Amino acid sequence: TNEDATVEALQERIEKLEQELNQRLNIIADEVESSKGDNSRSRVTLGGYGELHYTNLSSDDEDVRELDMHRVVLFVGYEFADNARLVTEWEVEHAISSAGSRGAVEMEQAYVELDIQDNLHWRTGVQLMPLGIINETHEPTTFYGVERPIVETTIIPTTWYGAATSIKQSFSNGFSYDVMLSEGLKTEDPTSDPDAEPFNLKAGKQKASFASAYDLAVTGRVAYRGVKGLELAVYGQYQPDLDQSAETSYAESATLIGGHVIYNLGSVTLKGLYASWSLAGDAAKNAGMDVQDGGYAEVNWKPLSSWGFYSRISQYSQQQDESKEIVELGVNYYPLDNIVFKADYQQYNEDAGDFSGINLGMGYQF
Amino acid sequence: TNEDATVEALQERIEKLEQELNQRLNIIADEVESSKGDNSRSRVTLGGYGELHYTNLSSDDEDVRELDMHRVVLFVGYEFADNARLVTEWEVEHAISSAGSRGAVEMEQAYVELDIQDNLHWRTGVQLMPLGIINETHEPTTFYGVERPIVETTIIPTTWYGAATSIKQSFSNGFSYDVMLSEGLKTEDPTSDPDAEPFNLKAGKQKASFASAYDLAVTGRVAYRGVKGLELAVYGQYQPDLDQSAETSYAESATLIGGHVIYNLGSVTLKGLYASWSLAGDAAKNAGMDVQDGGYAEVNWKPLSSWGFYSRISQYSQQQDESKEIVELGVNYYPLDNIVFKADYQQYNEDAGDFSGINLGMGYQF
Amino acid sequence: TNEDATVEALQERIEKLEQELNQRLNIIADEVESSKGDNSRSRVTLGGYGELHYTNLSSDDEDVRELDMHRVVLFVGYEFADNARLVTEWEVEHAISSAGSRGAVEMEQAYVELDIQDNLHWRTGVQLMPLGIINETHEPTTFYGVERPIVETTIIPTTWYGAATSIKQSFSNGFSYDVMLSEGLKTEDPTSDPDAEPFNLKAGKQKASFASAYDLAVTGRVAYRGVKGLELAVYGQYQPDLDQSAETSYAESATLIGGHVIYNLGSVTLKGLYASWSLAGDAAKNAGMDVQDGGYAEVNWKPLSSWGFYSRISQYSQQQDESKEIVELGVNYYPLDNIVFKADYQQYNEDAGDFSGINLGMGYQF
Repeated sequence: TNEDATVEALQERIEKLEQELNQRLNIIADEVESSKGDNSRSRVTLGGYGELHYTNLSSDDEDVRELDMHRVVLFVGYEFADNARLVTEWEVEHAISSAGSRGAVEMEQAYVELDIQDNLHWRTGVQLMPLGIINETHEPTTFYGVERPIVETTIIPTTWYGAATSIKQSFSNGFSYDVMLSEGLKTEDPTSDPDAEPFNLKAGKQKASFASAYDLAVTGRVAYRGVKGLELAVYGQYQPDLDQSAETSYAESATLIGGHVIYNLGSVTLKGLYASWSLAGDAAKNAGMDVQDGGYAEVNWKPLSSWGFYSRISQYSQQQDESKEIVELGVNYYPLDNIVFKADYQQYNEDAGDFSGINLGMGYQF
Repeated sequence: TNEDATVEALQERIEKLEQELNQRLNIIADEVESSKGDNSRSRVTLGGYGELHYTNLSSDDEDVRELDMHRVVLFVGYEFADNARLVTEWEVEHAISSAGSRGAVEMEQAYVELDIQDNLHWRTGVQLMPLGIINETHEPTTFYGVERPIVETTIIPTTWYGAATSIKQSFSNGFSYDVMLSEGLKTEDPTSDPDAEPFNLKAGKQKASFASAYDLAVTGRVAYRGVKGLELAVYGQYQPDLDQSAETSYAESATLIGGHVIYNLGSVTLKGLYASWSLAGDAAKNAGMDVQDGGYAEVNWKPLSSWGFYSRISQYSQQQDESKEIVELGVNYYPLDNIVFKADYQQYNEDAGDFSGINLGMGYQF
Repeated sequence: TNEDATVEALQERIEKLEQELNQRLNIIADEVESSKGDNSRSRVTLGGYGELHYTNLSSDDEDVRELDMHRVVLFVGYEFADNARLVTEWEVEHAISSAGSRGAVEMEQAYVELDIQDNLHWRTGVQLMPLGIINETHEPTTFYGVERPIVETTIIPTTWYGAATSIKQSFSNGFSYDVMLSEGLKTEDPTSDPDAEPFNLKAGKQKASFASAYDLAVTGRVAYRGVKGLELAVYGQYQPDLDQSAETSYAESATLIGGHVIYNLGSVTLKGLYASWSLAGDAAKNAGMDVQDGGYAEVNWKPLSSWGFYSRISQYSQQQDESKEIVELGVNYYPLDNIVFKADYQQYNEDAGDFSGINLGMGYQF
């Protein structure tokens, strides 16, 4: 019948539709799948950050007016497997590195991390010391002030990295710990150079470059993040011999202890950090450099996602009878989450050079 | 009836087909979407260029035969948002940078660009000066001759970059302008070094590295591209103080003015550029270096996409009674759009060193 | 009729279904297509490797204890087309490059490769010399021992690269050959520096950085890989003039010949290499440095994919009456294919410094 013919035609049409759509869907699904298979590349991750500084500080004796692309960093990571990864950090400091310039290229991180357990990681390679607030997390969008907190660039000589092997474990109760065995400091040798500063710890960083390894350093940290908004950490490092067993010994062991607290109350955050080096031996004592310590307190307020304000007081001493103090306040403006413009006003006390003035900065991360 | 049963079966079949296809389409759409969500990575863009030079020049006094991987560059960009982006340019000059070599690593660009309006961009960070033809666009595939035009590497000291903040706006009528506030030049200080060249402008580039910022420079450019094939631009820079307020002043202000025209007639392109520095003060005048200027004219012909030919005459003077001239002609061969092999013949006049000879080059960009 | 109405409704429904699905399929197909078009980026390939070394060697006179991030490398490649590609290798040596450090940034590869035929490749740019086993393939996962085989870092001065143009062809019968025209060595000039070592070949590498190109070098290699598990290669280089036509000639030509065999028998691999330099001229002969040669033999055994063991004996001489020998054995542990931890024990004979001790290493590649 006519009806029959129509129904048959419909059946055919549906069948044809089914076939055709199946075909097209399979083609598309294959393409989607193959474009995912292409993701050998997506095991590589790229990131970075950078900081431009404008300094305008004055004292009775000296004016400093400087523009400096302090750092540009590229992170290259790779995921070998779910439980193994690479982190590398390529940094150009001060925009140019050459025989005639003051900048540098530094490999600040280059380590392989293997997961021993889900919460237990083993790292080998060039790593950041697990010390302080800034040393491991120093993207410019994460802190206030154009310059990093001075206690963390002098007493804890941030950015502080070295060749090391380390263990990091975290627990569900909020505790975590780090243990690291690394290259130690090797301070300047006064037996061959009369201008050397044998107890200048920052100058003793070996930076994973032909690092003397007669006397390795041990570093440890315990942190607690079990309460929302709170971070507590204590840490320490022991250096058996600052001169790395030099033939004519000019220095002995050095011990750093420190700790910090960060407490976040809604838009207000409080930070406090203290760190102290003890240098053993008569030479350090006679030089008045056997104790080198410092601390800072900071309050910041971020009423809007794009604006934040802070004030910080820093006190430190690298020499007996020296008490440096810097008071500062300023603002971070974030046009976007990962871009920041900064301005601050700083006042240095007499021991710190008697400077006052402003800093402006631009920073980004991705 | 039988008919009823068949029609009902058809209805069911259509419904099932609809459901099934909907399901499959949703799955595929989700995968496509999620593979796009994966594109946090695709916000990162990578590019680069490089140049290998072979120089074979001779004069009565001297032969130069040199192979040099002059530049290898990596661009890393990031798109923070539709209206905000990062540009960084990592450059290795002369293949090796170390304490004992003549090469360098330079961070020639590292800026964040925010769109104030669709046609109005604000950049902060390390940037190329908006001057000349070559300074901002210097990939080897974009110009003729193994070496960049000499007037643009001496009078306009390309590659010229610095820490800066700038505005760039373009209009639909073909006009655009740039205004930049940046670090100025700081020329060599003769008060401490008798061999210093206080009016050598190229040597005064501070390259965003601890740049003295007592006296910032202002740069401006107006360009017109409103007629197809034509580019007109005029530009200038004012430096208030070449010695950056040195205690013992050895230099005063410097002013650059310049302009260029590029006119494209089918396969033939004409280029002309002129730029001139005026250095204020008696010291510059007495040294015969108060006017430093130069210009060049070029004609190039690209009859095929893979072959281009050029001739260029360059004249410049950095010192009174000096008139350097270089005449050259050569060929670019492009096996692919982004790879170029170059050959040229150059003749220097007596003031320019009396050299003549050939250069060969290989360049690429991506 | 009722039936008619139902059938008509069905027809309409199928049509609507067809239209709707077509629309959705087209949208998805477009998105898949456009996400593929986005793959301009996927023409860029990234890779890299790195090596951390711990050295603990002692002799009667000297102890060496060192931690060093010897190398971190980033490969950036680009595929211009199916028959044209770029290879660049960015290397940070010894973790830091600056005016005051011993590390370097090196551009060890930066060449464009064009396929003349499927099996015939033409490279121009900075390239690795086609010599030895290690020079071209030196990722730490590919060899045994923390340090590279010493004969290949002294006699063949690996990593040996330079500005060059070269041809590489391979045949289906297992044969392949390389011919390269490159910068030559330029050894230290004793006419201006009394401490110079005019016949120290490794120090004469010019590294594509302002390389004197008066006297180019020619390099050739023939290799055979036609039998499974076997690799045979012979190679040579001719340098017309080690002083690159210095005004006061202090050196003459130099010729390197060498060869190696690698034979893989299941889990056991045997390697042997020998290379020898002949320096022409009386000066080299009088200095006792006219013949500089060496060789090594290695056996390694990899019973499991994650463990391998080796032993190697290396002998070499860079000076008359000198016979250096190093015997070593050690282990590679691969927690994953592309990560390796190494340990070895080395014993140097008296000529080689009389050291003995251990090396530990970590390496990765991706």
